[in-house]
Formats: sequence, structure tokens, C-alpha cells
Amino acid sequence: MSSNFGKNIKLSIFGESHGDAIGFTLDGIPAGEYIDMDRLFKFIRRRSPGNNKFTTKRREIDNPVFLSGFMDNITTGSPISCIIKNKDHKSKDYGDILDKFRPSHADFTGYYKYNNYNDKRGGGHFSGRLTAPITIIGGIIKQILEKKNIYIGAHILQIGELKDDNYDFLNLNKSDFNKTYNKDIPIINEIIEEKIKKLLENIKKQGNSIGGVVQCGVIGLPIGVGSPIFDGLENNISKAIFGIPGVKGIEFGSGFFGSSLTGLENNDNYEIVDEKISIKSNNAGGILGGISTGFPIVFNVAMKPTPSISIEQDTINIKKFENTKIKINGRHDPCIAIRSVPVVESMALISIYDMILDYYKG
Amino acid sequence: MSSNFGKNIKLSIFGESHGDAIGFTLDGIPAGEYIDMDRLFKFIRRRSPGNNKFTTKRREIDNPVFLSGFMDNITTGSPISCIIKNKDHKSKDYGDILDKFRPSHADFTGYYKYNNYNDKRGGGHFSGRLTAPITIIGGIIKQILEKKNIYIGAHILQIGELKDDNYDFLNLNKSDFNKTYNKDIPIINEIIEEKIKKLLENIKKQGNSIGGVVQCGVIGLPIGVGSPIFDGLENNISKAIFGIPGVKGIEFGSGFFGSSLTGLENNDNYEIVDEKISIKSNNAGGILGGISTGFPIVFNVAMKPTPSISIEQDTINIKKFENTKIKINGRHDPCIAIRSVPVVESMALISIYDMILDYYKG
Amino acid sequence: MSSNFGKNIKLSIFGESHGDAIGFTLDGIPAGEYIDMDRLFKFIRRRSPGNNKFTTKRREIDNPVFLSGFMDNITTGSPISCIIKNKDHKSKDYGDILDKFRPSHADFTGYYKYNNYNDKRGGGHFSGRLTAPITIIGGIIKQILEKKNIYIGAHILQIGELKDDNYDFLNLNKSDFNKTYNKDIPIINEIIEEKIKKLLENIKKQGNSIGGVVQCGVIGLPIGVGSPIFDGLENNISKAIFGIPGVKGIEFGSGFFGSSLTGLENNDNYEIVDEKISIKSNNAGGILGGISTGFPIVFNVAMKPTPSISIEQDTINIKKFENTKIKINGRHDPCIAIRSVPVVESMALISIYDMILDYYKG
Amino acid sequence: MSSNFGKNIKLSIFGESHGDAIGFTLDGIPAGEYIDMDRLFKFIRRRSPGNNKFTTKRREIDNPVFLSGFMDNITTGSPISCIIKNKDHKSKDYGDILDKFRPSHADFTGYYKYNNYNDKRGGGHFSGRLTAPITIIGGIIKQILEKKNIYIGAHILQIGELKDDNYDFLNLNKSDFNKTYNKDIPIINEIIEEKIKKLLENIKKQGNSIGGVVQCGVIGLPIGVGSPIFDGLENNISKAIFGIPGVKGIEFGSGFFGSSLTGLENNDNYEIVDEKISIKSNNAGGILGGISTGFPIVFNVAMKPTPSISIEQDTINIKKFENTKIKINGRHDPCIAIRSVPVVESMALISIYDMILDYYKG
Repeated sequence: MSSNFGKNIKLSIFGESHGDAIGFTLDGIPAGEYIDMDRLFKFIRRRSPGNNKFTTKRREIDNPVFLSGFMDNITTGSPISCIIKNKDHKSKDYGDILDKFRPSHADFTGYYKYNNYNDKRGGGHFSGRLTAPITIIGGIIKQILEKKNIYIGAHILQIGELKDDNYDFLNLNKSDFNKTYNKDIPIINEIIEEKIKKLLENIKKQGNSIGGVVQCGVIGLPIGVGSPIFDGLENNISKAIFGIPGVKGIEFGSGFFGSSLTGLENNDNYEIVDEKISIKSNNAGGILGGISTGFPIVFNVAMKPTPSISIEQDTINIKKFENTKIKINGRHDPCIAIRSVPVVESMALISIYDMILDYYKG
Repeated sequence: MSSNFGKNIKLSIFGESHGDAIGFTLDGIPAGEYIDMDRLFKFIRRRSPGNNKFTTKRREIDNPVFLSGFMDNITTGSPISCIIKNKDHKSKDYGDILDKFRPSHADFTGYYKYNNYNDKRGGGHFSGRLTAPITIIGGIIKQILEKKNIYIGAHILQIGELKDDNYDFLNLNKSDFNKTYNKDIPIINEIIEEKIKKLLENIKKQGNSIGGVVQCGVIGLPIGVGSPIFDGLENNISKAIFGIPGVKGIEFGSGFFGSSLTGLENNDNYEIVDEKISIKSNNAGGILGGISTGFPIVFNVAMKPTPSISIEQDTINIKKFENTKIKINGRHDPCIAIRSVPVVESMALISIYDMILDYYKG
Repeated sequence: MSSNFGKNIKLSIFGESHGDAIGFTLDGIPAGEYIDMDRLFKFIRRRSPGNNKFTTKRREIDNPVFLSGFMDNITTGSPISCIIKNKDHKSKDYGDILDKFRPSHADFTGYYKYNNYNDKRGGGHFSGRLTAPITIIGGIIKQILEKKNIYIGAHILQIGELKDDNYDFLNLNKSDFNKTYNKDIPIINEIIEEKIKKLLENIKKQGNSIGGVVQCGVIGLPIGVGSPIFDGLENNISKAIFGIPGVKGIEFGSGFFGSSLTGLENNDNYEIVDEKISIKSNNAGGILGGISTGFPIVFNVAMKPTPSISIEQDTINIKKFENTKIKINGRHDPCIAIRSVPVVESMALISIYDMILDYYKG
Repeated sequence: MSSNFGKNIKLSIFGESHGDAIGFTLDGIPAGEYIDMDRLFKFIRRRSPGNNKFTTKRREIDNPVFLSGFMDNITTGSPISCIIKNKDHKSKDYGDILDKFRPSHADFTGYYKYNNYNDKRGGGHFSGRLTAPITIIGGIIKQILEKKNIYIGAHILQIGELKDDNYDFLNLNKSDFNKTYNKDIPIINEIIEEKIKKLLENIKKQGNSIGGVVQCGVIGLPIGVGSPIFDGLENNISKAIFGIPGVKGIEFGSGFFGSSLTGLENNDNYEIVDEKISIKSNNAGGILGGISTGFPIVFNVAMKPTPSISIEQDTINIKKFENTKIKINGRHDPCIAIRSVPVVESMALISIYDMILDYYKG
């Protein structure tokens, strides 16, 4: 079902651009969890547009209003329900743009799937705006997992062809992730940071956009979370991650690069160091047989370039059934990967928390 | 749950190496479907070991015995249940190998998850042998979907660093896939075929192994299958594909490469050609907003190199809790990607059929 | 999960008495369904308190506000989300009543399950008020099913020992159900109606309450809805019906009475009448092997007496851990069965619609 | 899905009369559970036919063969898979009986649902024989739950109009249930036992059958198992219980009788006795708000009379589309309630164990 996720927790998100509000319901969070609302708001603001010159200029403040599930910021055990008001959702003059399919947007598939009854303004149920509820849920779970010493962070690994090649899968560092919180671009490697800024300015000037790769790391997950075959960490994390608009690929550990290696090169050898089991490399990305190894989980997420660009493109007018041109004006993110960083974290938080609840069972 | 998949169909697979048989139950297939058993056996033999010199020399014949669900090769509407006898599962002398974790195998995680109660001989529930039931299920669904003119095929895109770069996402060809059926290596591009054979012979001689990438294509899926956010084609296909042992990545359409492109380069423009809606490129891989576009679905699957190699590796003995060496003798596939081709097809068949049943609802 | 239901549709309800609003999200309703909002409001008002002297005097108007899923009263295919504002949820002085378990309420189990973090005012997530969202969902589905000529109605079969024994399972009548809409007590049999009114007045005067039985009928369901064993009509209807606070039993067709009969008495014989297959009795209540027979579905629902009574009862004070007395003042329904009638209809509508979507598949 | 059940455990059953075997797969049982196979076989023999003169004379020995999930009678954490060979499933001469719908059997609905492709011999997937796998699963879980001091037992409460009215919901007694194990009829109350035997002999002589009520009790379940609304004990137990062929009703605690009482009569008052919270009655049947109270759970299950009787009945021949007569010869149970006792226990064991796993989470 499009808006639902989870086995032990159940989340359900909703919203369209013409409505009064978007939001979510989240069931399965135990009673008695205190959530620091300031920390939560700080977490979700990372996704908000208008933070800096590399994101869309639209300024929205995603102000969550909790309708149930909390009493004095402590969970009651009832479903947590939350709405975020839509600002300024009054109908604008969309002109004939509603009849033209924007290339590589879901206008085309939405039109046919919903027999043209779907809300086309702003992308309807496909809208990237629905990642706001996801990020609120992620921010709540982040606080619960950190009490169990499980930390999840993400950063920009690549924009266009500029890639951070130095990252070490085995020694992920919480403080590395944390220092990205106050940056315009949440990137750990400072060497490519400046090059990426220049690239983005250039892309923006052209009215074009560019793709990128987000890397996510999970630190502190105990051995034994996940199950073989259909219920492993890779199955469930990937199912969640592909819920983010624009994601077209995911790889764990050495991933696609590992496919070009030999077994001798790619295998992670064990050794005992200081009375503890250790590994010499982490090409498995912390997962063997679908189950956590206790070493860091690392995965990369491929985000496509923002499909909305202000350069003229070929398309069709479905009403007139004829070839035409389209130029998508407006304030678009030059690179959706940037604002996706907390969303990737949130999807990882959600899917891993759901599996941890199985881990603690009978 | 580790052994279960599906919403409209429900499959449940089982088996361990020490038992009499492995198998599956598959519920939700409508009554009245005729299945050509010869075609089915031909389909599943592609996964069987011992077919040629590039796969393990163990010769098993996966002889499915159907216990329910068929009468005269026509489905009855009851769950289809099937077992495959294990040959020669008598206990062998495994020596101290049971106490050593094979690098990059699930021995380590299995040991901790199941408190050492798991069946360690042959990989237990992690065994690649459990892809045999998957392939039988895939072969049944293949015949049902082909009656609806939906065709799914896969081929080897890459082994090690040798990659077929010529493939055209927009004009997938059923006959291209079909001609791989009788080859030692199921590869479409004949130019790299010979190079790959030489590479594999070399790898085998060394007792090493190598990774690879499988590409899968879906032809004929109507517009509108799948839903946004959590129930899209990418979510469900990836959840199934990561059920195959050794898969570490998946990408749809231009995937990770698309992340290095600009919007102008990656967007797929529409045009009307011969009174029909057409696209000029298929970088979306046939999916927008989680929903099929009606154009071919294309995705790549990264397979790690077989972790079992006969070259000596460092590891630990868990019983003695000391560092040691391991050399895994026996008959291993030099490249598991090869035999995974029909398994990838089967996981695509299973996950897409499950979503098609939603499509025909309401 | 406490707040979720459904396979093909997914509903998620939320709300507590201290919050701003209660509500629901409903996913899976196809795009393009027109809903008559006046008819919907008329349907849900039947559940509202304060309608007449036999229900609680609290006057709430359950004014649903739809946040998504509709455009011009036509479904868009996105999740339908709806909130109902809580009136007057300001904290009252509950005194020490929060420390006393009300007999046969969920105070006791809620206290232990949620470690005393649950919202105790008004019953929290156990509140009968959460049947308001259920009734709105039911009212939407009612309009969709009636376009398919499937009609679901319910009425009061019994209050205390006063029982309508005349009802004919085989010839249910839509107009019989419809005429109960404007009555104080939704009862078809007019002979016992007056006796029941007198009984209720008497019960109310005493500060006591009384139980009752609701009968529900489904007319027009085609043959073949439902599946054997775990996914039959009885399984899914009963799972939903026990979601109504106060329900303690359900029986289909001749039910418990049928257990006292012989096979010869209870069997429903077939005959061909006017070129159509007919049955001579409907003791099966329209279901054989979990599957609809095409004849009316009939089931009875046992509702316990309202546990809140203003007569003094023995209980304990959990804080002081001592025996005490409790007198629950306030405006309580003398018989919750009465206002449950549209809720029973709604649960039947929800569970049957979910199964019908399977019926139209494949 | 017809053959699947469970959230934390997943069971999948299969089988038809024309096949070689029936069986099940059960996933989610933790590794390391020792199962006493002799106790298990003793448990399942209670369901087997031919035990005494009050059950069908067919003698089957349900010999389970475990294909996976156990090593030396200890669970491995992999799915447990089990088959039971069908004896003597060679095609018999059914004559024209296959074209006549047996009154109150699922022949009629099966014919239409499966377009006449279903296996009609012996009831296909509707067969009572599929309760054998259920009972094996129940017997496994029984041993696991008894290690946690949770005991589930059932007995015959009523056959025809002969009813055991003396049973005390509050003081259920393990030994009462255990002493029914070696009786012809598993009944606790010895006063009506003889009367029931005479009634059954008489019914059998007539070629007729009779209905009955099974009562099930759960002792030792801790407070807090189950959740409000859709995921309570009543929802999940009833969903499972209606999976038993012939069940037409279920009631918890005072159930339908409670609907005739006042609140003052039906409410269960609390008191502190010997420093412990106690209740003066258990009309709630151990469940408030869907959640266990820690006091015994009690529910009654209405079983219809066996529909197969050797007395001539009216029916139709579907092939000739004409009215006809049917006489069902063969060895039928005069009262299916008797052999259903361990099946009711098993469904309770399965559904409660699934919910207990949620209880131990998080």
C-alpha cells in the first residue's frame, strides 16, 4: 500500500498539495519515551527548503502539530498522529502546464493510474513534500535508538562526477556526521566541498540540475538484527529507501564496485584483536546473510538529477495529443540529493527500528 | 519473516542441508492455470549446478514433486506445495571447519543469531540451494504472465571488469534473452563472451572467484502497475532481489551512472510517434513515481564474488577463540552471478506478479 | 497493530481525549469515486451521542474535515485523511477517579500495558469515541458498495432479555433496515420496540445499564467472496467486529443455536426454483467454507452492558493499594448496543470491501 | 490469504485429498527450543479419527515427517516444515456425487469460486483433514508456552441441548483439562457425560449428526498481552478460530448471555485479597480493551452439526441443473465438536503465541 510501512511499527502518511495539511500516523512506539522537541525540530529543519543558496528558495517552515500519542512530550503508547499545515495552497494559475507531462516526473504515470483524477498541482501524492512527515518520524526514532547507543548518519558522497573516494567503511565516526549539520552541503570530505559548491552554482545558473549519491552509516547495531532471505536488513532498508522520490539505486558495502573484484579481494577476514572479534575490511557493509555483523552498516543511495529544469525540453500535450515544448520555471533544487540526506537517515532509522523490535522478541 | 514474501500471493520456502527435502508453499495462484511442466523443468535447469565448466561440478537434479495445488497440471486454486529431495545429505566429516567462520559467509551472523543451534552444514537456511524453490515459483509465474504478454528475461551484464556497455534500455528484445538459454554463460553480447570465458577459466585455476552484474528486463508491463512511496515497483522488486544470496546492490534505469548526469542529460523526453506516446530515452528504467510507464523496465543487480575460495585466508576458530587459517576446498562456482540469472528473473516475476494482482483490482 | 486494519485497503485511526483531534487515514480507495457528503453526514450522525433520550446527553457534532484524498468530493487515489476536532478537551478535575479502576473498563489493563503513561482521561485509545472515525470510513465505503448493488444494514435484535425472534435470514429487506434510520432505537420489529423503550427508561432511572445484541445483514454480495481457512468472511468480519469496544461475541447464521440442532435440522437444502439455484433455509448465514454463497450474510454481535454505571461498586485505589468504592457519575449511554448499530455496519463494510477487492483480482 | 496466519510467526498450510501429502511450514520459532516428540504425538492423536465409537471409523495415523527446522528435536531457527502422507488417496468411484452439492458443505461455494477446477474429492482445501497440520503446530507451541507457565486447554461444554452449566470462569483448573485426555469425549463435567454418550449413540443410529460447543481456557497469561481496537486478543483469537471448519460462533466470558444482563450484574469488581489484586467475577473472560487481565481467558466456540448425514436430503445436480436427492454414505463423525477440542486449543495456542511475541518486544 502506497502510504504504509512497517511490521512492528506501522506508519501511514498522507497529503496532497491542494489540501489543508499533510501528515502521518505512527503506531507501535512504546509508552514512556521522552522526546526532546527542540532536538526534533533541529533534525527536521535540515530537510526544509530555503536553508541556503543550494536549495530551492521557497521558504516553508514545517511546523509539526501532534494530535495524539504524546502527553508532556512523553509517548502514551497510542498512535502518534501529526499534521503539518500547507501554506498558501490556494489554487494558482497553472495554465496549460497541467496538460503537459514534465519529462521524468510522475505526471505521466499518475495521469494513467488515477484516470486523471489525481491532484496534479505540485505533484500530488508523489510530491517530495511528503518526505517531511518521513523526517519527523525519523527524528523521533533517532532519539529512541540513541538511548540504545545506535547512531545513524548520512552525508553527500558524490555530486555529478565529484566523488569522495576516501571514506573508510570500518571506522565510521559519529562526529564526522554531526559536523555536517551546520553546513550548506552536508559533506564530510572538505577537499571536494568547495568544488561541489562551484559545480552547483554553475548548474543553477544554467537552469539545469544534477544527480548525486548519499552515503548512510549505522553505528552500534548489535549482531543478529535481520533474518535471511526475504527479511534481511538489505531487503527492508532498500524497500524503505526507494520510497524517497528520485532514488534509482542502492548498494551495500562494496556494492557494484565489489562485483568487479575477486573473492580474495572482496572477502572480509576475521581476526581476534584485544580479545575481541574484529574484521580487516568491511566490504560486506555490516551485513552477512541479511543479518547485522555488529560492524558498521554502510550503504550508498543513487539520486537522479531533479527532473524540473528551466531549460526547454520536448514533451507532449496530452489534451491536444500533440508534440510541444515545456520550460519549468519556478524555484527548484539544483540537486535533490542535498536535502535528501536527513530523509535517507530517516528511512534507515524507520526500517532498522522496525527490525530491532523483532530482535528483542521472545 | 525470513521465508515469506508477498501480499496477493504468499510464498513460504523452507529447507536445510541436513533435512530430507527443501521446498515451498505458494498460495494465491488462481484456479484453472495450465502449466507446461516440460517448459518449467527447462526453466529451472538453468539454475542447476553442473551444467557446464563455469559452474560447480556438483550435479544435482532439482526434481520438484508437487504435493498439492495441481490436478492434471492445472492449478486447483489451493496452495501449491512442492518439495525437492536432498540427495546425499548424510552427515559428512566436517572436521573443525564448523568452528571456523568462513570469511564473508553468514556463518558468523548465523552463529550469534541462532545461539549456535543453526544447521551449519552447507549454510543452513542461508544456503544458495534455497534459490531452487524460488526458481520453480518463478517458472510457474513466467508461464502465467506470458499469457498476458508480459515477458521477463535477464542476462550477464558484467563479470569482473568486463562489461557489456552496449545495451539499449528502450528496445529490449525477447529473442535476445531467449538465445542465452542454451549458452554456458547467459550473455547477450557475443563480443565480451569469449573474454569472459577466459577470465573465468583463469579465476578457477587460481581457486579464486569473481563478482558480476546481472541485468534484468521486463517487456510488456502495462502503464500503472505499482504505487507511489512505499509500494512502488522499485520498493518491491528490490525487497525480493536482496533475497538472493550474494546480492549487494540494485539500480533501475541509469541508476548510479545517472547520479553523475545533469537533468537535461538524464530526463526522458516524450514525443508522439505514429499516434502513440513514445520516449526518446529510458533512463527511468520504465518506472516513474514507483509506477510502470509501459516502457521496458530495466534493472541491474550487483553480485559479490563467491565467498568460498580455495586460497588460504585468515579467520578465527570460535571454539578455541584464536586466530587461524582457512582453505575452503570443494566444488564452488567461480562466479555465482552466472547461475543467478534465472533466480533474478524469478524474483522479478514473483514481485511483479504480486503487484499486477493489485493492478487488476477494484 | 492496534490502529491498523486491512490488506487491500489500509486504515489507520488515531486519537486520545487530551489531544486536539481524532481521525484516520484510509489508503487504497480507487481514484474517481464520487461521495455524496450529505448522505455521509447523515450516516455518521446515527452514531453521534445526544440524538435522543436513550443515548448519553453529551452533544458532540462529529464534523469531519478531510485533509487529503478528495477533490470536489471525488477521490483522487491518494490516501483519504480526516480529522474530527475534540471539543472541550480542557483538563477537568478528575479527582482521585484516575487512581481507581472502573470495573470492566480497560483502565486496569491500560495501566499495566502502558506503565501508567497512557492518557487516562476519557479512556484514551480505548475510548468509544474512536468509533467515530470508523463510522466515517464505513459511510464512505457504503456509497461505493451500493454502486455495486451490495447493501449492508444492521438493527437491534435484543436488549436485555427482550429479543426479536421473528427475523428471517433468507429474505432480508433493505427497506426494513432503512426505516430504522429515523427511529430513537434502530429496531425493525415494532412489537418489542415499546417494551424496550420502557426497559431502557427504567434502567436509566436506576443509574444502571444493560446489554444487547446487534444483528447485521449483507444483501447482494456475489458468490465467491472470501477464502477457506484463515481468510474467510467469518475470520475477517469477526476480526473487525471485535474492534468495537464492548463486543464480547459474534455468531453467523444459526450460530450458537445451531449447535443445539441436528444436521438434518440445520442443513440448508438446495433447490432449483424459476431456473435459479435457491436454498430452503439460510442457517449458514450466507457463508460456506469461508466463502459467500450469494445468499444474505447474517451475523449477530453480543454487546456487553455499558460498564459505566452510577450505582456504587467495589473497586481498588491503585495508588493507595486499598479497597474502595466507586460511583461513576456523568452522562452515560444506558445501552451501548444502540449507538453501535452504524459501527457494526461500518466494520462489516470495511472488512467485506477489503475482501471484495481480492475477489475482483486476477 | 487462505492458508496463511500470523504476524510474528508465519504459518502456511497446504494439502488436498488427491495429493501425496498435506503439511505446513512454520516460520518464526526461535532456535534452541527442545520439543518432546512423544508428548507432541500424544497431543495430535486426540484429533485423529477412529479413536473411539463417537468418531468416524476411518483409522488414519497422522505421522508427521519434519523436513526442516529441527536438529535432534531442537529447533534450528529455520522454518519448521512438516508433511503427513495421505493414505489411500487413489481415485475412487465417486459416481455422480461430484455433481451434487452436499447441503451445508463448501461444494457449492468451491464450485463457483474455483470455476470447477477445485479438487472435489474429500473436500479439497476445505477438508477437515487440514486441521491435522494445525494441531501439530499447536502441539509444538503448547510445549514452548508451558515453559513460560502458560497453559491452554479445552473441553466439550455442550452437545445438542445438553450443556455443562457449572463451569467457573475464575478458577480454571489445569488438571480438569488434563483428565479429559483419556476420555472418549473430552468433557469435564461427569454428570452430563453419560447423557451425552447416549445422545450420540442415538444420533449415530439415525444417520444424523449434532452440533456442540467447545469451551477453551487460558491460564497464566500475564497482564498486558494484546492491543486495543484491531489487534486485541478477541480479534486475533476469533480470526484463528473461524479457520476451523464448522465453527459458526465465538463468545468471550459471559458473551451472549452477558448481553441480557445489566451493568451491575455483568461488571467484574476488583478487590485486594492477600496483597494481590483480585476480581470477584470474570465475566470479561480475562480480556478488557483487547488486553489480557492476567485472570483466565475463557471463550466458547459454536460448532455446527456435521453436514454429512446418511439421511436423504434435497439438493440439485449442477451438471443436469435439476432437483435431486442425496444420501451421503460413509463413515462420518456424528459430532465434529468432539474431535475439534485439540484444534480449538491449537488455534488458541497459535494466535496467543503470536501476540505474546509482541508483548516481549521493545
